[in-house]
Amino acid sequence: MKKTLILVLMLAALSASASAQQRNPVVPSFTGAIEDFKPNVTNQLGHQYPMVNSQGAVRAQLRAPEANAVQLDIAGKRYEMTKDENGVWTGTSDPQDVGFHYYQLNVDGASVPDPGSIYFFGAGRWGSGIEIPSDDMDFWQVKNVPQGAIEEKYYWSKATESMRHCYVYLPAEYQKNPDKKYPVLYLQHGNAENEQGWSAQGHTGQILDNLIAEGKAVPFIVVMDYGQSQNIHLVGQYAPQPQPQQAQQGPGGGRGNTGPDAFQTVLLTDIIPMVEKEYRVIADAQHRAMAGLSMGGMQTRRITVANPTTFAYVGQFSGGTISVEDVQGAAGFQQTNKLVFMSSGSKENPRVMEAAEALRGIGMNAVGYISDGTAHEWHTWRRSLYQFAQLLFK
Amino acid sequence: MKKTLILVLMLAALSASASAQQRNPVVPSFTGAIEDFKPNVTNQLGHQYPMVNSQGAVRAQLRAPEANAVQLDIAGKRYEMTKDENGVWTGTSDPQDVGFHYYQLNVDGASVPDPGSIYFFGAGRWGSGIEIPSDDMDFWQVKNVPQGAIEEKYYWSKATESMRHCYVYLPAEYQKNPDKKYPVLYLQHGNAENEQGWSAQGHTGQILDNLIAEGKAVPFIVVMDYGQSQNIHLVGQYAPQPQPQQAQQGPGGGRGNTGPDAFQTVLLTDIIPMVEKEYRVIADAQHRAMAGLSMGGMQTRRITVANPTTFAYVGQFSGGTISVEDVQGAAGFQQTNKLVFMSSGSKENPRVMEAAEALRGIGMNAVGYISDGTAHEWHTWRRSLYQFAQLLFK
Repeated sequence: MKKTLILVLMLAALSASASAQQRNPVVPSFTGAIEDFKPNVTNQLGHQYPMVNSQGAVRAQLRAPEANAVQLDIAGKRYEMTKDENGVWTGTSDPQDVGFHYYQLNVDGASVPDPGSIYFFGAGRWGSGIEIPSDDMDFWQVKNVPQGAIEEKYYWSKATESMRHCYVYLPAEYQKNPDKKYPVLYLQHGNAENEQGWSAQGHTGQILDNLIAEGKAVPFIVVMDYGQSQNIHLVGQYAPQPQPQQAQQGPGGGRGNTGPDAFQTVLLTDIIPMVEKEYRVIADAQHRAMAGLSMGGMQTRRITVANPTTFAYVGQFSGGTISVEDVQGAAGFQQTNKLVFMSSGSKENPRVMEAAEALRGIGMNAVGYISDGTAHEWHTWRRSLYQFAQLLFK
Repeated sequence: MKKTLILVLMLAALSASASAQQRNPVVPSFTGAIEDFKPNVTNQLGHQYPMVNSQGAVRAQLRAPEANAVQLDIAGKRYEMTKDENGVWTGTSDPQDVGFHYYQLNVDGASVPDPGSIYFFGAGRWGSGIEIPSDDMDFWQVKNVPQGAIEEKYYWSKATESMRHCYVYLPAEYQKNPDKKYPVLYLQHGNAENEQGWSAQGHTGQILDNLIAEGKAVPFIVVMDYGQSQNIHLVGQYAPQPQPQQAQQGPGGGRGNTGPDAFQTVLLTDIIPMVEKEYRVIADAQHRAMAGLSMGGMQTRRITVANPTTFAYVGQFSGGTISVEDVQGAAGFQQTNKLVFMSSGSKENPRVMEAAEALRGIGMNAVGYISDGTAHEWHTWRRSLYQFAQLLFK
């Protein structure tokens, strides 16, 4: 079961990667679109395209007068685009799920970002993204409420002998209360994403500012770091040489181990001690949470079960489940734990509800959550954070 | 003279814009390259291309098997790329100046970002950038020294009746000294750039962390906001309706004035009061600096001269000069001022040295600085910040 899940998650992450894009089938442009398209919220300033209509169909446009074929590549299909007399190509996708999706254009066999969209890191690359409006999108909008801040922070990692990079959300009141200490959530991205995903695609800052302003969440700090284990090189352990640009920028760059526990080592050796030194933090298990999406959810399970008295709050968003056997095999986990939260999109395998029920059967506080109408994507995870954050540190 | 300068700066900013790219001449790939190309530091993780050699020539590569023509578009020329038997196109530019440059690829008439590079906002678009190594690039590298943080911060603007967005550099010691207040530098980007330029292309955080660690600069706060006046819509004054996506995201979005003083209004009405409320700031002229590059330098001159007792330190990087007449026409400017710093790349018009000499002639502390071997680009401005920061608040 676990191996199947990991395979499914890896395939989901790979489905938008460069090599996979070349294999996505070419299909005709969607012809059933209602003509109420509007410029997307993730467009570059001044760009009319891409557009989205009320059905969630995406319409892209690109000027490429000498091209032979241009396609809109989204959700595993390449939609044919058609050229007008000015050399401008236009194409429309089938209706998409609400929420955020990665996509790209294909120009004569070259897979490139759409010059009309802003860019996000996911599916293993910086590239285009689009936002299909949802009825509930209000919860992650920027509003005129007390604003926290998201800090970009570098720090020295002993485990990798390199500088690493994370983002830290500080609630609005943090700078005003120099004597107050705060709980911390360590929040991880998925496979082929990075430490910017939770703030850029996930809108962590807006979700928490809005919840705290409404009194629905207590103020806490969120730490978002880079968890891609194959790029974490632990000192003194064997691994292939990193590529030159990995050595020059971003996380990693040292020698070492890239195995499944590499992120655990960095988290426990470097990240948590750095956060507890640099910020005003309540440094105990009852004020420490870990959560993650997809691969980050699997890391959360492995790390919290292997360190059963370190984190009292655990969240897995589309990232598997914690079983009764996991809990019973981890001495102290149940005594320390205040919450196990497990979520999934309704278009994924919603085993999370059964898993939560099983944990409640042994007396745990376990919550399952299903995101209606979404799959293994960011809107599932924004909604999961919105639910999870309201249950933390109370 | 002033009108000519503005025209030159606007043309420089436009030279990489989408319409201008179509007019850039197509030229042959550079044939005199030394074959010591290395992957660039601004490449996406795992990408070998683009590469740069010891001459500063840029080599790009793109797989586009069905394309008719692909070009590397950089510094006003489109270099022809050549296709190999696998459908991979490769081309090489002439040697470029040291430092950072925007560029793009052209595929059958479509101007698109290079999927091999990470993306920056400049020249009016999110797109590719490349870093030509320089002998002095050490000063902006991430080092194992005490690290400040760059906060992403939203705030409510009364002048525009909208949420606005800025970045705030806090020195490493800020969180450790809850009773200490700090001076502030308001630091502005150039035309067709945005509030991320100074941290992403400019490496403000690294420049200041390194200078402070070496004891060459005193710790201060830096505020980097969005100064593009045509997108600042002041309440109650006439302006064309914003485009839909401007209303939904980013700065602006309200009704109102978009004239040359729009940024001054926002700076004085909203930004400075917000900073002095949200952060621990010494709120007087002697601890307040303003500087900017190109258009931001011209805004700095206009705003500091129009508000002669508000800022004691003034910096113009490739953004014109302050004259003796400016000073003498602004009551209190000379009495308040501690420093006028004016800089330029050596490949621009280096009038800054004469201008500084003239100001010294009336008893001002004025410093001119020429960045050797660079033009109207980011390496000039990084070096300018490095010099300017050492002179502030001492």
